[in-house]
Amino acid sequence: ELPTPTLFTEMDTLQQDGDELEWKETARWVKFEEKVEEGGERWSKPHVSTLSLHSLFELRTCLQTGAVLLDLEGYSLPQIVDEIIEKQLQEGGITADQRENISFVLLRKHRHQTKRTKHRSPADVGKTGGAASEERTHTHAHTRTHTRARTHTQSMNDIGDTPSSDQLKNKFMKKIPRDAEASNVLVGEVDFLDKPFVAFVRLAQATTLGGLTEVPVPTRWGPQPASYHPVSCHLFSDVAYKARDRDDLIAGIDEFLDEVIVLPPGEWDPKIRIEPPKKVTPADKRKSVLSLNELGQMNGKAGAGGGLSEDEEIFCGGLYLDIKRKLPWVFSDFYEGFHLQSISAVLFIYLGCITNAITFGGLLGDATDNYQGVMESFLGTALAGTVFCLFSGQPLIILSSTGPILIFEKLLYEFSKSNGIDYMELRLWIGIHSCLQCFVLVATDASYIIRYMTRFTEEGFSSLISFIFISDAIKKMAGSFKYYPINTAFRPDYVTAYKCECLAPDPSESPSGVALCAAMTSSWLTRSSPVNVTDLDWSQLSKKECLTYGGSLQGTSCKFVPDLALMSFILFFGTYSMTVSLKKFKFSRYFPTKLRKLISDFSIFMSIMTFVGLDMLMGLKTPKLIVPTELRPTRPDRGWLVMPFAKNPWWVYVASFVPALLVTILIFMDQQISAVIVNRKENKLKKGCGYHLDLFWVGVLMAVCSFLGLPWYVAATVISIAHIDSLKMESESSAPGEQPQFLGVREQRLTGILVFVLTGVSIFLAPILQYIPMPVLYGVFLYMGVASLSGIQFWDRMKLYMMPSKHQPDFAYLRHVPLRRVHLFTLVQVICLAVLWTLKSTFLAIIFPIMILGLMVVRKLLDMVFSQHDLAWIDDVLPVKEKKKKSKDEDKKKKGKEKRKDKKKTDDLDDEVRNAGVCCPPLVIRSMTWIIPV
Amino acid sequence: ELPTPTLFTEMDTLQQDGDELEWKETARWVKFEEKVEEGGERWSKPHVSTLSLHSLFELRTCLQTGAVLLDLEGYSLPQIVDEIIEKQLQEGGITADQRENISFVLLRKHRHQTKRTKHRSPADVGKTGGAASEERTHTHAHTRTHTRARTHTQSMNDIGDTPSSDQLKNKFMKKIPRDAEASNVLVGEVDFLDKPFVAFVRLAQATTLGGLTEVPVPTRWGPQPASYHPVSCHLFSDVAYKARDRDDLIAGIDEFLDEVIVLPPGEWDPKIRIEPPKKVTPADKRKSVLSLNELGQMNGKAGAGGGLSEDEEIFCGGLYLDIKRKLPWVFSDFYEGFHLQSISAVLFIYLGCITNAITFGGLLGDATDNYQGVMESFLGTALAGTVFCLFSGQPLIILSSTGPILIFEKLLYEFSKSNGIDYMELRLWIGIHSCLQCFVLVATDASYIIRYMTRFTEEGFSSLISFIFISDAIKKMAGSFKYYPINTAFRPDYVTAYKCECLAPDPSESPSGVALCAAMTSSWLTRSSPVNVTDLDWSQLSKKECLTYGGSLQGTSCKFVPDLALMSFILFFGTYSMTVSLKKFKFSRYFPTKLRKLISDFSIFMSIMTFVGLDMLMGLKTPKLIVPTELRPTRPDRGWLVMPFAKNPWWVYVASFVPALLVTILIFMDQQISAVIVNRKENKLKKGCGYHLDLFWVGVLMAVCSFLGLPWYVAATVISIAHIDSLKMESESSAPGEQPQFLGVREQRLTGILVFVLTGVSIFLAPILQYIPMPVLYGVFLYMGVASLSGIQFWDRMKLYMMPSKHQPDFAYLRHVPLRRVHLFTLVQVICLAVLWTLKSTFLAIIFPIMILGLMVVRKLLDMVFSQHDLAWIDDVLPVKEKKKKSKDEDKKKKGKEKRKDKKKTDDLDDEVRNAGVCCPPLVIRSMTWIIPV
Repeated sequence: ELPTPTLFTEMDTLQQDGDELEWKETARWVKFEEKVEEGGERWSKPHVSTLSLHSLFELRTCLQTGAVLLDLEGYSLPQIVDEIIEKQLQEGGITADQRENISFVLLRKHRHQTKRTKHRSPADVGKTGGAASEERTHTHAHTRTHTRARTHTQSMNDIGDTPSSDQLKNKFMKKIPRDAEASNVLVGEVDFLDKPFVAFVRLAQATTLGGLTEVPVPTRWGPQPASYHPVSCHLFSDVAYKARDRDDLIAGIDEFLDEVIVLPPGEWDPKIRIEPPKKVTPADKRKSVLSLNELGQMNGKAGAGGGLSEDEEIFCGGLYLDIKRKLPWVFSDFYEGFHLQSISAVLFIYLGCITNAITFGGLLGDATDNYQGVMESFLGTALAGTVFCLFSGQPLIILSSTGPILIFEKLLYEFSKSNGIDYMELRLWIGIHSCLQCFVLVATDASYIIRYMTRFTEEGFSSLISFIFISDAIKKMAGSFKYYPINTAFRPDYVTAYKCECLAPDPSESPSGVALCAAMTSSWLTRSSPVNVTDLDWSQLSKKECLTYGGSLQGTSCKFVPDLALMSFILFFGTYSMTVSLKKFKFSRYFPTKLRKLISDFSIFMSIMTFVGLDMLMGLKTPKLIVPTELRPTRPDRGWLVMPFAKNPWWVYVASFVPALLVTILIFMDQQISAVIVNRKENKLKKGCGYHLDLFWVGVLMAVCSFLGLPWYVAATVISIAHIDSLKMESESSAPGEQPQFLGVREQRLTGILVFVLTGVSIFLAPILQYIPMPVLYGVFLYMGVASLSGIQFWDRMKLYMMPSKHQPDFAYLRHVPLRRVHLFTLVQVICLAVLWTLKSTFLAIIFPIMILGLMVVRKLLDMVFSQHDLAWIDDVLPVKEKKKKSKDEDKKKKGKEKRKDKKKTDDLDDEVRNAGVCCPPLVIRSMTWIIPV
Repeated sequence: ELPTPTLFTEMDTLQQDGDELEWKETARWVKFEEKVEEGGERWSKPHVSTLSLHSLFELRTCLQTGAVLLDLEGYSLPQIVDEIIEKQLQEGGITADQRENISFVLLRKHRHQTKRTKHRSPADVGKTGGAASEERTHTHAHTRTHTRARTHTQSMNDIGDTPSSDQLKNKFMKKIPRDAEASNVLVGEVDFLDKPFVAFVRLAQATTLGGLTEVPVPTRWGPQPASYHPVSCHLFSDVAYKARDRDDLIAGIDEFLDEVIVLPPGEWDPKIRIEPPKKVTPADKRKSVLSLNELGQMNGKAGAGGGLSEDEEIFCGGLYLDIKRKLPWVFSDFYEGFHLQSISAVLFIYLGCITNAITFGGLLGDATDNYQGVMESFLGTALAGTVFCLFSGQPLIILSSTGPILIFEKLLYEFSKSNGIDYMELRLWIGIHSCLQCFVLVATDASYIIRYMTRFTEEGFSSLISFIFISDAIKKMAGSFKYYPINTAFRPDYVTAYKCECLAPDPSESPSGVALCAAMTSSWLTRSSPVNVTDLDWSQLSKKECLTYGGSLQGTSCKFVPDLALMSFILFFGTYSMTVSLKKFKFSRYFPTKLRKLISDFSIFMSIMTFVGLDMLMGLKTPKLIVPTELRPTRPDRGWLVMPFAKNPWWVYVASFVPALLVTILIFMDQQISAVIVNRKENKLKKGCGYHLDLFWVGVLMAVCSFLGLPWYVAATVISIAHIDSLKMESESSAPGEQPQFLGVREQRLTGILVFVLTGVSIFLAPILQYIPMPVLYGVFLYMGVASLSGIQFWDRMKLYMMPSKHQPDFAYLRHVPLRRVHLFTLVQVICLAVLWTLKSTFLAIIFPIMILGLMVVRKLLDMVFSQHDLAWIDDVLPVKEKKKKSKDEDKKKKGKEKRKDKKKTDDLDDEVRNAGVCCPPLVIRSMTWIIPV
């Protein structure tokens, strides 16, 4: 049975225009109602149709008495009108002398509402529709023509078969689904009739007449031009398409009446137009709960490879499945990247990545005496990122250096330096061991552990990372005030008192030529020849030169730098707040939707450009983004390849297994939890996930980077979230008033690859990049942190603390879980986070990812405090152990009846509770059997 | 006939709690529905009740078959239950053996929903109500007690007469109108009944039982616990109160059904809760148009003195009426000022006033060689403002110096200087003439001209003033960058190269001792004795000293001031945007309504304090607010009193009549148009206006200020609007879900008086005020300008240009006037404004208020371009001339029928079109007879 096509409904009313009668379009429905404003000559906002019960009853009466012609073979309007009148004559509804009049009125021309000024419709709207649903082959072309058409006044006879160019140009067409069919409603008041003349016509097949012919066309004359339009209703249109006789129609109206929702008149003013709801549950879904199949689909299980359950574990089974799941998408992973949005995403993520690369490069350089510096950071990011995006299971993940790795490197370097072990070689061996350990984890499908990461763990982790981002951004900004101290005691009038002079060193105290020479050697001043100190004109030297040559600075302005700190602040805060405002601009009323979307997509780019421009305009020497320009290791005494043997004793090669274990856990947790966040159900990813494949490549890259002496990389939560956010798709053509739906993410490898290729190429982009002030990038950082917080339910729940309950948003879990339980749950999270934050600030940061395991333990303990019902709403239910499950299977049959009731509840619940992190196939099972296990 | 009291309705359903049956509160209605959330144990957001048609029909059936007891004399619950059962037994609805069971169930205890955790209700809710509406004297006390009560589990017998302390404490009480009565709905499902048991009880008078007794209490048992609640509906409650028998009730439901609004199920998901509408037109108003009387009231005509029409003009009639209208408010004008909001208003306006006083004082000082300086400006503002606020017709108006006056003074001073005429004496005579001319205008009721100022003129003027405010604020801010130039070439490394030295003048070029002495005399350095130039240590001198003594400044840093410009910008922008955000905070979800309102009310004060604090923290030498500290004229050679004779030839006294005429027109227009804006209908002022009285006092103050040599004052549009905005009142206790209504403005004289007294006292507040940086005040200025724009329809229409029509707000005029006509109208306004803005920037600014007359002419011409219908919607209709009106009166009788139709339309229209500036009595007539005059 074919589905009922979407109906486009148009209501025309009979009006006197000068001496002529004509049918004027007054309302239309695709999904919601749009009226022609009385005096405004324009379409109203789409709104939910409201109608009075009275008119519904009247319609019912009309259908009972009027002519009903179903599956009429209609080919032209006059013919159809003839048939209607014939029918009515037979039934005695009208007298023979009214025949002429009715026919005349029915064939009057139609005038349609366009955005342009009034014109007359020549060929009245080619509207069509077929009910019995055979032969709908050429319907598409027809329906594409139906709403517009109205240029010059022509005679009624002009009923063409081809759509006019005017019809084809009508922009409204885009809003109508392609397989739509049309229905016309004509309502008019005439004086030659003494009782209503009603006809309901359904054509046998969709026909385009150029004139007006329509499917279920309840053409009705009557003294009451009451508004009525059940045909627009999805429910009724189904009936109208399938009705076999008049009684079916009446029954349809009765069914409609039964489902109707009633607003009491006292509380509601009929003048108010109800905004279309954000999301309407289709009638069929409202009735039944979702099928399990659909649930599986929603849980991110893409078609292929879904069958394997945990019980049938094989060696490398997870990896095999991941590859099997990914293979079908090989090509689409690339061509789906060609979209304007990708450009904005690439620019945004690129800027995030190089900022990160520079920051971590600088820090690593400090920590390792430049064994790994900015240069290595750039190359490593480019290499690891490109490889990962090319081959990984989830190419939306962005690799980056992360805090724990940095701390590990720092400790490792200090250890090797104090113990006389070669750092680079030790690091290489740790990398190799770690890589192998990753392979073991992959082979044993260890990634299935992520099933135990519920929303609680996941949100705890991502909130923490977001907080770190935000606090880092602010700290860096605050740093400006330290690097560029402001002379707050400055008085404009005493400008004469501020100076900074370079004084020659007192010869008696001079550290002699040796020290001076050393100073000059290590100097970054590229002077060709050593300088004779005594020849120097000390007052002409710059601050650095002065200090290099041993001079001392004296004066009140020496330690102050004017303007730069404040300017940095303006750039920082400006970039952040402009980005936020532009992002919000999507929801404003101004400009067409497309333009707003463009502005919103490019908000970060536009903010950066604006503030880079402002900075250039001011011309102040704010700190700029400096990328290395020459392709050579930061430290001159190391090459591009690290040799595995020779420098360290043999036992080091074996012993490095132990620190490698720490690194592996660190990487495993960091990587997988970020992947869980990326693969969240809310993101509606269609291409499935690949935890095992991801881990495999991270392992490979560990080894490769170790050989090349580049930093290690792992999934970066915040940037990955930003990546996904910048690639979100929304439905474009929707019925007027319908909210654009979030369709999913543009899943492809192209943006990621481009970002990292660009990062690699950045070395040659230095002339352009040097215009970007660092504070602007910190602003981008701040935005990233704040934006990634905003999607987190934990954060929503935090806000609840400050809201009186009557103002709280209508979250699903608030309807089902007592507020104080929600608050308690949030409080536990807050405490966990506080503990983590404190630990993170100490040297314990290195075991930070392991602490996530602690979070999972806390979550397990919560099972004792909260009921499974509550947890199902505010978190997810933990899977029960394998064996328990099996024994339960046996119980199940006994509890048959009871269970079924429960399960229905559960499914319904699962539909609403967004249980994140349930991507991999075995997890799907959970939602079928494991919920409410106690 | 007494009005029907508001009903508080509570629905309890029968539930099993452990072994016991109990009635649990599940929903309540005051105006909108609040449900108890299923699992959430809390009240849902108030929403519009939706119910299925089906349940409505079922209710109807129930009422037909159930027991109906109207005007029952009930004094206790058991008695009432007995009576119900007796009745049902008689009618055969139940069998005798069910009697016990029913009575048992009905008397189960009630559990109510509180914010606290579950407690048992002892005395089940004392709910009461009286129908026949005699003896409702002690009802207030009763109803105040009804919703709460639920502490410890007690026996059912506990039916006290006094409200428990718990009941009294319930905060919800505040939400219920004082004369409310209660109704209880009990719904339950029991197994001992085979058909529904329904009873509808209305007590003869409102009774408080402590237990449960209620007015129209359809107590119903039945197997279908469908949700139903027509009693909550205003419409039906009327019926329920007045019904004489069962048939009346049924008829009531039928009537309700007839008015019901139906939502088609396909477009609306019943799970969505509909937000309460912003404003519901009460049913009675919806049916009929407003009466003319009401219209008159709404147009600002306060009870007293409304009878006098234009035809009966008498000498000083307007002034007489104004005084008559103001007299009854003498006391309330003071005591109504005692409110927390007044403090915020006073602080806000005070800061605006002193900023204005300082700005204009400075400019006047420049323009008149300090004949009028900052000191005069402060004293004048204080004097004029206090007097005006004490005695004027509209004390909400704030007087201030304005631009046109400033320009006039400047031209006058230049004229008198170049012609050897004494400026102060000439100015005094102009003031005297102008004062007399004002009296003439008052006596001849010239203020009636404001009838011709429609929205077009008024909005043109106030937009222009707002633009001037905004542009002034930005200009002043930009000035900071000029006064404190930033050294953009500064390189931190070359700090050694920046200095500024004071060099001794070259003796050969020295301007000799004479010039030096002159420089020292006019110097503001308060050195006790002249200095010997040759003794000076030039390098120790400050910038000013150096220049004073003829030295020259040399160095790269001399002309630059670090940090101050950027800091000023941060202060300026921060104050503005913080104020805007805090104002918006009122609409956020956080914190209780009262706190949010407080924050919003004090937003300006809090922003100022924050940024003053920031400024103090930074310690930078930003420009501060400096008020004069000593009470003496700015120019030492003038006294506090200007003598009228002696200095100028006699003809000057007469000739000054001509410039006085210009000043009078200038003052008249400026004053009256600001007054029109203040008296706008939208502001819902209740105490009426006083255009004539206002002008009288402005005239008096002109003369007084001229004698004292103080600047002239006239109404300041933007500050007056800010004054009104800060005094707006909203209804506090409203039914849950109901939007707080704008009630009007706190009309009183106290805030104004305080503002100006404070202004006068500011001279002694200098130690506190000196901490306020000027950029913060410019931020406040910017906010004032932007805020006063936001209330203007013209501005709304400007925004329409940028909105695609589907996103445009649902303005009433957009429903009735074609969009391109609206756009055309807006365009005309934009062009007019552009012309005015250009003229304003030239010397023509002096005739600026006269240009408003030009606007009125343009508006008159628009009558030819736009239809009266369109103008009525987007502007107001101009009054026609007296004589025309009379001749039309004769025509009217002929066109009788036609006219009446028109008029009804017109009234309806007048109700919605906000026609501002129609305050004075004669104007009311317009809306009755003059609309659509052509």
